[in-house]
Amino acid sequence: MSPFTGSAARTGRWEHLRVDLTDGVATVTLARPDKLNALTFGAYADLRDLLAELSRERAVRALVLAGEGRGFCSGGDVDEIIGATLSLDTAQLLDFNRMTGQVVRAVRECPFPVIAAVHGVAAGAGAVLALAADFRVADPGARFVFLFTRVGLSGGDMGAAYLLPRVVGLGHATRLLMLGEPVRAPEAERIGLISRLTDEGHADEAARALARRLADGPALAYAQTKALLTAELDMPLAAAVELDASTQALLMNGEDYAEFHAAFTEKRPPKWRGR
Amino acid sequence: MSPFTGSAARTGRWEHLRVDLTDGVATVTLARPDKLNALTFGAYADLRDLLAELSRERAVRALVLAGEGRGFCSGGDVDEIIGATLSLDTAQLLDFNRMTGQVVRAVRECPFPVIAAVHGVAAGAGAVLALAADFRVADPGARFVFLFTRVGLSGGDMGAAYLLPRVVGLGHATRLLMLGEPVRAPEAERIGLISRLTDEGHADEAARALARRLADGPALAYAQTKALLTAELDMPLAAAVELDASTQALLMNGEDYAEFHAAFTEKRPPKWRGR
Amino acid sequence: MSPFTGSAARTGRWEHLRVDLTDGVATVTLARPDKLNALTFGAYADLRDLLAELSRERAVRALVLAGEGRGFCSGGDVDEIIGATLSLDTAQLLDFNRMTGQVVRAVRECPFPVIAAVHGVAAGAGAVLALAADFRVADPGARFVFLFTRVGLSGGDMGAAYLLPRVVGLGHATRLLMLGEPVRAPEAERIGLISRLTDEGHADEAARALARRLADGPALAYAQTKALLTAELDMPLAAAVELDASTQALLMNGEDYAEFHAAFTEKRPPKWRGR
Repeated sequence: MSPFTGSAARTGRWEHLRVDLTDGVATVTLARPDKLNALTFGAYADLRDLLAELSRERAVRALVLAGEGRGFCSGGDVDEIIGATLSLDTAQLLDFNRMTGQVVRAVRECPFPVIAAVHGVAAGAGAVLALAADFRVADPGARFVFLFTRVGLSGGDMGAAYLLPRVVGLGHATRLLMLGEPVRAPEAERIGLISRLTDEGHADEAARALARRLADGPALAYAQTKALLTAELDMPLAAAVELDASTQALLMNGEDYAEFHAAFTEKRPPKWRGR
Repeated sequence: MSPFTGSAARTGRWEHLRVDLTDGVATVTLARPDKLNALTFGAYADLRDLLAELSRERAVRALVLAGEGRGFCSGGDVDEIIGATLSLDTAQLLDFNRMTGQVVRAVRECPFPVIAAVHGVAAGAGAVLALAADFRVADPGARFVFLFTRVGLSGGDMGAAYLLPRVVGLGHATRLLMLGEPVRAPEAERIGLISRLTDEGHADEAARALARRLADGPALAYAQTKALLTAELDMPLAAAVELDASTQALLMNGEDYAEFHAAFTEKRPPKWRGR
Repeated sequence: MSPFTGSAARTGRWEHLRVDLTDGVATVTLARPDKLNALTFGAYADLRDLLAELSRERAVRALVLAGEGRGFCSGGDVDEIIGATLSLDTAQLLDFNRMTGQVVRAVRECPFPVIAAVHGVAAGAGAVLALAADFRVADPGARFVFLFTRVGLSGGDMGAAYLLPRVVGLGHATRLLMLGEPVRAPEAERIGLISRLTDEGHADEAARALARRLADGPALAYAQTKALLTAELDMPLAAAVELDASTQALLMNGEDYAEFHAAFTEKRPPKWRGR
């Protein structure tokens, strides 16, 4: 636990998500399988608040985001989101869309890697959640559908128009966001949208194994790698090089770097402490 | 027609382009087939002015850019551009190059998607025009040649050194812009430069069909998707997320979003109004 | 030689690199083959200073960076860098990491194209040096390993977290920098990390041939193409288009552009002067 927590209490129970925390690995499961894990106002709010809590507590070194049942996440629920937003006023609409954006920012900015375990459909907001993760571990039946224009909305939702061109290039991103057509696993892997393709039905297991490996490794090095990747998308070369230099100087004062050298010299595997 | 047009008259006749406007789809054809549609001072000026007119009139929901004859566009005419620029003074040279850049900016910033229909060669400025489009629909005989260095000029012409790395990555972009070698359709598709590969001889037809689909669909959603993709290349994550939120809030007040929900509920296809 | 050199003398002998300069092509060879060309403090300092000298002298039109023996470069030496940095104080650690970053900035900002000739392993700082080059000419046995996290450091080293997402996209870059796994030549080519794949054992030869071609060609056009690619990664579209316009206007006043037109008209190959 971080010394930098204050009065705010830890949330006792997350009503809209299933959350497990074991030895530094958090597993967050979207668990409305009868609705293909369609998101609700409550699920977005829980994701926002959970990521904020986990980020400040520092008890997590890697997080798996998974979906229960036939698919990863079908996106915003047609009734509970689309229908409900039709009766919101303008300030509430802005508030809702800022909340969904905060979830994506939290995924990009939390101090641990996030691994989306994708099987079946990742649609709409579900596709953007997967896109915001550091790793998309997916099985051959996975498909991504940025379907926003098909409901009359902008393909740029929750940062998708920022993130997707940086992951797959502007040409593919334009096609996917504008047309809202499904991208199946083979194409998704080819264009760089899938980080690791698994055997059928093994995405969750492979995502958990990766999270375990990251949590047991030099976790501060991983966290800083993520932070630099996120920050340097928005920085010029000279500033990025300076940030890299100061980050490396910091980590060269850390325990894991010295441990690597000791282990190498003693011809044994390093015992990572994550600091 | 937009209520925000003033005294400026619509241009009656475009001397250097063939222009058709049917039910919201503009088709702009480079029509000097005996010269492989080589561009002239007049053609650049017409492209600049036409895109400005179409952007302010708001009568267009999608635009196809095509080339008549054996290829899409061979770039600036060797005599009428290269030869002619040799006798221009420095201010005129700057003026010429700003004009060509304005065409690219207009393609990226106009409030409707632009579809380049590419068959045969897209060379020099022709390759950059295609690159600036939102979609490159191309047939298997298409080839892109960023040949600027082969005439002694910079590969960064009309924004190519900005756009190409964002479409195909810095490594491929460096190779293509520095060496000026042709990229044939299979490689262009593999690296993300072609959005949609068609059967031989069907690029124009497929581009028209795509334009028709876009014009008949939720056109405001498409236009905003394009605007966000263009703008968010130049924005940091936090600002992009905020722009997405306010755009979605705006569109959630729009007709097409409500129509989607009504159609879904009534189990019928939506009737898009583009607003 | 440039008229803009001052009192600083040319370095007579580079102790940590082998340097050859022939007809405008510099070849810089990492030459510690018994150590897989592992880098030392001296090698980094020499790379930094050599690139600064070559940049101000203007005698070079293309540079090949190669490695002698079984591989390109295994990165920082485990004893002479990792071990040695363990006894540096914080100011020295920052100084060291700024120096390595200066090498990468020099590779990106020097006024001539840099071609990395990669065979065998390019690991750690060796992988980043290759990444910073304009071209990676590699043979089928080449592999790239961004192994920083495996020694407890950040994957963002020497600008890697800036450069790699811009070359291969954020998804692949995250995987490579976070996990430190090897990327072999077929995957490296597929994701855009290799510019040109050669036959086995021919990377050095192909890199030299490319450098010769660039040095004998319109070298100012190549240099400006490189400068624009580097600068426009950090510029918005409108500014990039303006920079392209003023660069083209400049080059249209140059000798090579006029020579192209004369040669074309006279149906002979151009005699490039590089100005």
